[in-house]
Amino acid sequence: MNVLVLGGPNLNLLGTREPEVYGKDTLKDIELFIEKSFEKRGFVIEWFQSNSESKLIEKIHESIDKQDSIIINPAGLTHTSVSLYDALKAFQGTKLEVHLSNTYQREDFRKQKVTSGASDGVIEGFGKMSYFLAFQYLLEKINGE
Amino acid sequence: MNVLVLGGPNLNLLGTREPEVYGKDTLKDIELFIEKSFEKRGFVIEWFQSNSESKLIEKIHESIDKQDSIIINPAGLTHTSVSLYDALKAFQGTKLEVHLSNTYQREDFRKQKVTSGASDGVIEGFGKMSYFLAFQYLLEKINGE
Amino acid sequence: MNVLVLGGPNLNLLGTREPEVYGKDTLKDIELFIEKSFEKRGFVIEWFQSNSESKLIEKIHESIDKQDSIIINPAGLTHTSVSLYDALKAFQGTKLEVHLSNTYQREDFRKQKVTSGASDGVIEGFGKMSYFLAFQYLLEKINGE
Amino acid sequence: MNVLVLGGPNLNLLGTREPEVYGKDTLKDIELFIEKSFEKRGFVIEWFQSNSESKLIEKIHESIDKQDSIIINPAGLTHTSVSLYDALKAFQGTKLEVHLSNTYQREDFRKQKVTSGASDGVIEGFGKMSYFLAFQYLLEKINGE
Amino acid sequence: MNVLVLGGPNLNLLGTREPEVYGKDTLKDIELFIEKSFEKRGFVIEWFQSNSESKLIEKIHESIDKQDSIIINPAGLTHTSVSLYDALKAFQGTKLEVHLSNTYQREDFRKQKVTSGASDGVIEGFGKMSYFLAFQYLLEKINGE
Amino acid sequence: MNVLVLGGPNLNLLGTREPEVYGKDTLKDIELFIEKSFEKRGFVIEWFQSNSESKLIEKIHESIDKQDSIIINPAGLTHTSVSLYDALKAFQGTKLEVHLSNTYQREDFRKQKVTSGASDGVIEGFGKMSYFLAFQYLLEKINGE
Amino acid sequence: MNVLVLGGPNLNLLGTREPEVYGKDTLKDIELFIEKSFEKRGFVIEWFQSNSESKLIEKIHESIDKQDSIIINPAGLTHTSVSLYDALKAFQGTKLEVHLSNTYQREDFRKQKVTSGASDGVIEGFGKMSYFLAFQYLLEKINGE
Amino acid sequence: MNVLVLGGPNLNLLGTREPEVYGKDTLKDIELFIEKSFEKRGFVIEWFQSNSESKLIEKIHESIDKQDSIIINPAGLTHTSVSLYDALKAFQGTKLEVHLSNTYQREDFRKQKVTSGASDGVIEGFGKMSYFLAFQYLLEKINGE
Amino acid sequence: MNVLVLGGPNLNLLGTREPEVYGKDTLKDIELFIEKSFEKRGFVIEWFQSNSESKLIEKIHESIDKQDSIIINPAGLTHTSVSLYDALKAFQGTKLEVHLSNTYQREDFRKQKVTSGASDGVIEGFGKMSYFLAFQYLLEKINGE
Amino acid sequence: MNVLVLGGPNLNLLGTREPEVYGKDTLKDIELFIEKSFEKRGFVIEWFQSNSESKLIEKIHESIDKQDSIIINPAGLTHTSVSLYDALKAFQGTKLEVHLSNTYQREDFRKQKVTSGASDGVIEGFGKMSYFLAFQYLLEKINGE
Amino acid sequence: MNVLVLGGPNLNLLGTREPEVYGKDTLKDIELFIEKSFEKRGFVIEWFQSNSESKLIEKIHESIDKQDSIIINPAGLTHTSVSLYDALKAFQGTKLEVHLSNTYQREDFRKQKVTSGASDGVIEGFGKMSYFLAFQYLLEKINGE
Amino acid sequence: MNVLVLGGPNLNLLGTREPEVYGKDTLKDIELFIEKSFEKRGFVIEWFQSNSESKLIEKIHESIDKQDSIIINPAGLTHTSVSLYDALKAFQGTKLEVHLSNTYQREDFRKQKVTSGASDGVIEGFGKMSYFLAFQYLLEKINGE
Repeated sequence: MNVLVLGGPNLNLLGTREPEVYGKDTLKDIELFIEKSFEKRGFVIEWFQSNSESKLIEKIHESIDKQDSIIINPAGLTHTSVSLYDALKAFQGTKLEVHLSNTYQREDFRKQKVTSGASDGVIEGFGKMSYFLAFQYLLEKINGE
Repeated sequence: MNVLVLGGPNLNLLGTREPEVYGKDTLKDIELFIEKSFEKRGFVIEWFQSNSESKLIEKIHESIDKQDSIIINPAGLTHTSVSLYDALKAFQGTKLEVHLSNTYQREDFRKQKVTSGASDGVIEGFGKMSYFLAFQYLLEKINGE
Repeated sequence: MNVLVLGGPNLNLLGTREPEVYGKDTLKDIELFIEKSFEKRGFVIEWFQSNSESKLIEKIHESIDKQDSIIINPAGLTHTSVSLYDALKAFQGTKLEVHLSNTYQREDFRKQKVTSGASDGVIEGFGKMSYFLAFQYLLEKINGE
Repeated sequence: MNVLVLGGPNLNLLGTREPEVYGKDTLKDIELFIEKSFEKRGFVIEWFQSNSESKLIEKIHESIDKQDSIIINPAGLTHTSVSLYDALKAFQGTKLEVHLSNTYQREDFRKQKVTSGASDGVIEGFGKMSYFLAFQYLLEKINGE
Repeated sequence: MNVLVLGGPNLNLLGTREPEVYGKDTLKDIELFIEKSFEKRGFVIEWFQSNSESKLIEKIHESIDKQDSIIINPAGLTHTSVSLYDALKAFQGTKLEVHLSNTYQREDFRKQKVTSGASDGVIEGFGKMSYFLAFQYLLEKINGE
Repeated sequence: MNVLVLGGPNLNLLGTREPEVYGKDTLKDIELFIEKSFEKRGFVIEWFQSNSESKLIEKIHESIDKQDSIIINPAGLTHTSVSLYDALKAFQGTKLEVHLSNTYQREDFRKQKVTSGASDGVIEGFGKMSYFLAFQYLLEKINGE
Repeated sequence: MNVLVLGGPNLNLLGTREPEVYGKDTLKDIELFIEKSFEKRGFVIEWFQSNSESKLIEKIHESIDKQDSIIINPAGLTHTSVSLYDALKAFQGTKLEVHLSNTYQREDFRKQKVTSGASDGVIEGFGKMSYFLAFQYLLEKINGE
Repeated sequence: MNVLVLGGPNLNLLGTREPEVYGKDTLKDIELFIEKSFEKRGFVIEWFQSNSESKLIEKIHESIDKQDSIIINPAGLTHTSVSLYDALKAFQGTKLEVHLSNTYQREDFRKQKVTSGASDGVIEGFGKMSYFLAFQYLLEKINGE
Repeated sequence: MNVLVLGGPNLNLLGTREPEVYGKDTLKDIELFIEKSFEKRGFVIEWFQSNSESKLIEKIHESIDKQDSIIINPAGLTHTSVSLYDALKAFQGTKLEVHLSNTYQREDFRKQKVTSGASDGVIEGFGKMSYFLAFQYLLEKINGE
Repeated sequence: MNVLVLGGPNLNLLGTREPEVYGKDTLKDIELFIEKSFEKRGFVIEWFQSNSESKLIEKIHESIDKQDSIIINPAGLTHTSVSLYDALKAFQGTKLEVHLSNTYQREDFRKQKVTSGASDGVIEGFGKMSYFLAFQYLLEKINGE
Repeated sequence: MNVLVLGGPNLNLLGTREPEVYGKDTLKDIELFIEKSFEKRGFVIEWFQSNSESKLIEKIHESIDKQDSIIINPAGLTHTSVSLYDALKAFQGTKLEVHLSNTYQREDFRKQKVTSGASDGVIEGFGKMSYFLAFQYLLEKINGE
Repeated sequence: MNVLVLGGPNLNLLGTREPEVYGKDTLKDIELFIEKSFEKRGFVIEWFQSNSESKLIEKIHESIDKQDSIIINPAGLTHTSVSLYDALKAFQGTKLEVHLSNTYQREDFRKQKVTSGASDGVIEGFGKMSYFLAFQYLLEKINGE
């Protein structure tokens, strides 16, 4: 199963930026953690982080013919990007939205979520485990088929 | 690890009520699926469903000295119950909120969530797999310790 | 035709509570009035009043295999109960919501109605005649078939 | 008992317009159905439909000295007409508002109701039976006196 | 000075409709009161009441080449009619809006005023004296020129 | 192709009313401009302007069996008329809403549009060319068939 | 008849401050204009302007035993002062609120009016004539008694 | 004087749950503190805490013929329960609402209060002293009679 | 214990102004009632009423080095005064807000409370007893130390 | 006439993405359709689609000295981009906004339009014909000069 | 250049009140800091702080013929005072609004700003340096002339 | 001191775009003005303007190890960019937000500010002097250390 893992704006700073909110793991740490946790499970994972809405959108476009699933953490774009929502709607495979923190415990402007309705499900508040659970879901889905 | 799995109003109807939204599994099916998936993993699970806000609250109170974690699907109470939010705040262990459907794709009144801020994280939209992922999280948490 | 007539919180006080708003009939008076008005019309009526949201929900669950129709006056729960709305959606028979008073002439918080969309129709403002009209509707429906 | 039955804008199209919402009966069908259902019950019924707010208002004015009751389906005017509300307030007899469909299951803009507070009660969601029930109410009211 | 005095929906009921709010004078009483109060002051007054928004609009259109001033009591249309606002904007002469009651002491929906911004000034709450003061203003305006 | 062109309240004043907003052309000028632009293109055009919501509604009703398309400029009724929205929904042919000015550059109350959802498309801001483009669309539609 | 004419904040600048909005007359000019217009009509007028909410409130308190009527232009306090509203409610005589400009044509925050509900009526948009009309009303009221 | 002291959801956890917000006293401590403070003052106090809205409602119903006063801390139900509001309205004796914390210093959703309008007065923010003051009020009321 | 009792705008009118809302006691009556009720309890009370927001603020400033507690009834300023809120925040002693009436039963604009979050607690709805209870609280606080 | 045709995010997917909403034509199809429809009409058209807000903005900047008109379909950026609005305001030539679908028939968040006020007019709901009509408008504008 | 520096309610407490928000400098410290920083730069500065809205308004009135510039920190009045807004609009010279703290990081009710639109610019969040920067601006403005 | 000066979308057009709002200086003029004004003051300034949100974000990321301060004019992104807010929060040095115009005097949608809470302070409305004052602040900060 080919999976595209998308990271939105500022996620490249993970581990240094507000660690009390987002934890001490870097995006690379999460990547290694996932790769190791799911090695030999048949996943071909492409990791892509961008601070650019348009590059995220285009990566989703490319994935239409290339990947089976998308795991996306849209970060700050979650709350405003109709364009990202539209792009995800165009992708027919499994889509999961993940967040490191529980957004219901943070600023009010993080409660409005524009992109979440475009995914199959949302996992939030578990730090790097949010990613782990997303992969676990895909794994079970494969096995279930 | 002792886990209390709480189900809110109408979940006893699962499998028959609006199956196009909630799937065909009954709550018992989910229970068996979880028990089987995680057997021998050291979980002692108490399953409790109630259509009564007060019984859910009291179950949470009892769990304070009895369980390590709560997995709760507050169902319709998600959107209005300050009392359930208060009860969950009083529980010091790990708390996870799960939903079978992706509430961002449904009626507007399901978008406001009162209880979600009281849990550590939220998993929604994966049908019975929402429960599976919640247990997976607890499992990893135990292993990680 | 088997009919379940549900009454929500405080309706047991009918006749004594704010009679200028709700009239002088007790719930029993209404029951007798209906039983007498429709005797020999083939209705088997179960009357159930509860101040408990959960008991009302469970009564609706039980009625799924037992009754053909529900006439519900959710009283104060009309304005907030997503759980009652969910329970009514699970009942496939005819559902009617009734109110004794015309809620459009009362406090602002009575104008928002959560449960009403789950019923087939709503009758409000006619005192005990709201119940009468609901039964009349069921009677005509039977005759029409 | 003299009754004025008022129909608001577009009701003349009944039976052809969006039958999945409003049913297949024409306004004439409803008229005949009611006339037949209540013949020899002592009703003198005047049927009046208009797409004009002012004609509806004037009909209400005329009815002040001519009819005992008004049954009104204000249709699209329900949601905005303060003038119709004012006219109904000036009529001292029994006033009933009826709707064919359950407006709580339709567009958001149909949930706001300006005129409903001016009537004694509201009956909605029963198709032509909404009218039937309104007359049934009047009938019982006469008998009750 | 040629003056058009416009009255909106239901004002023809003045004197009978809710006299505790609108007073006991009929529209004709107000007309006579004004005619007598300002006789020999050089006013040529046209009185026009309609329950029809369109007839009020067309009367305003006609007045463009015919009258110097408009005194309008839009009644229930005050709160919703963009069309009446547009019509008044097209009239270049002096425009005054009058209300019999003080709308700030009544229902909430009477506080929003759509038409008022199209007039030069607003006089409300003085019963028939609202009209008297409007004419007094016009009189002083003539004298002042 | 039979086309009904409907104009809402105050459009009969075009050319004189606020020409800086609506331009200097009268409705007749627009009519001549269109007739000339599309002569010999097979259009049978009926022009109808009314300041009355009910007459517009009835004209739409009549058009159901008479015309293939409606081009409507609801003017001030755009922002409030649920009845006009309902009438347009009942017409099965092609429907276009046009506005002379770009309403997004005007008063806030012109931004809410009730009727627009009932048409196939909306053209606004081009003065008389808004009408021209609407006909151009119909022409291409015929040719395309 | 003893009349207290109250002026709120900044009215002492009248004639110099934004004359395109408020006109070129000073408060003294208005005072002279009124005194002259109504001399020998039996009015004993006390003029009082203050930029202080508390001094206006106290002046109203004093007037309770001293004056028969209050004419008040609360200026900027119109939109926020609950205290001024409370003070006016305590005064049993005739109360009139006046404004020089038509507030419906100005900033949005001038549309909310807190104090207006405490007066018998409101006159706005006529420049110094707003005061004139207020006195005219009092004059007629005396004569009418 | 017979007094019913009602405690809403989660108050049974007092002393352990978020003591920085609610203090270290248990509900029993408060009970003892009150009993001791007011012993021999003639109060017959019934203490009743429930996590169930319906049990609180029914307790209020029973109190109608049994107690003279109700002191209620509706806790989380304060903010949503129309049913509790309705029940309190049916009780004719003295009603006081108390809160341990000052809700104006807490989450936004605690600022909306549905039940408070049904009581004679509200005392909040004084910890167990809120109860003390409520009894003090009743005591003075008795003495004052 | 030195206590400053502050009264906001219009409280000097107590006893005469809307006695059906505020009772028949004057502020002096309340003062005497309190002085007598708590004489020989060691309170040194300064009574200060002002209709001026600034004088209330300055009185609070002075009290910082002079009094131990403030009991404030901000009256109409409760609902809008950020400045009074700021002043109270600067005072480190015990602060209590009192209201004579239950504001939850009055106009909507009295439900928003700006100042209340700056006090330790709020007592409202008990007439002069609101003050009594505030002093009772202070008394118990002294005794409790 | 030099025309820049701008396409916003996800328009490169046209023809494959949600064809029931956007139709089966690709952006290239639209381009060919337009080029062919208007060949020899003197248009020099530059087609530019980007998923990047910044590239669209910069294209607009470049067009200031290069093109006479802009036809823009901002897609998902329509609803949020103040920056795009600002860029369009800086362009002095003719600006037209087009949309393939009628946004009034879609999700609520598509009803708010930030960019539309920056264009001369808006055409929406006609599929590829929205572009056609935009060019038709430009053509007529040239001819009209 | 003559400058009036205005300080609103509670600023006299600076240095003692909530120093973690407002810093440890007193208003006198700020005054000395500014006087020293800009001595011999030609400024004649009048410092005026008041807790009274009316005194601030009157100081602005006086400054019309006396000063060239106003630097104002309206403190709590920023968020509600229409009267202060009106007073500032009447002053034709340079106006600057300053705040010690960054109001965007504080309570929600500090985000609404009524007075800010009346000044030329706003400087906030720099503690006493907010004043320094305001003077620096005036200095550069003089030099620039 | 190393300073990064960031300019958001459309600022590259400064001097040509709406000069009545933004002034006649180009961004280069502002750069030269600042460089000249503060030469030999020890600033190493990097100027960076981009129309791309992502490039601004990345520039902020780079600055974390490179600059001491950021002066940012987010332009149109001020009002919507949660991502920019997040990026600024990750930068530990001094952050200042500047705007050329006073946004409180412009369109309503410019009043909402998402990014401003992430900076230490905000300076707006002074044209190029907004930048000057920002540097002046940094200069004084250095000197103060």
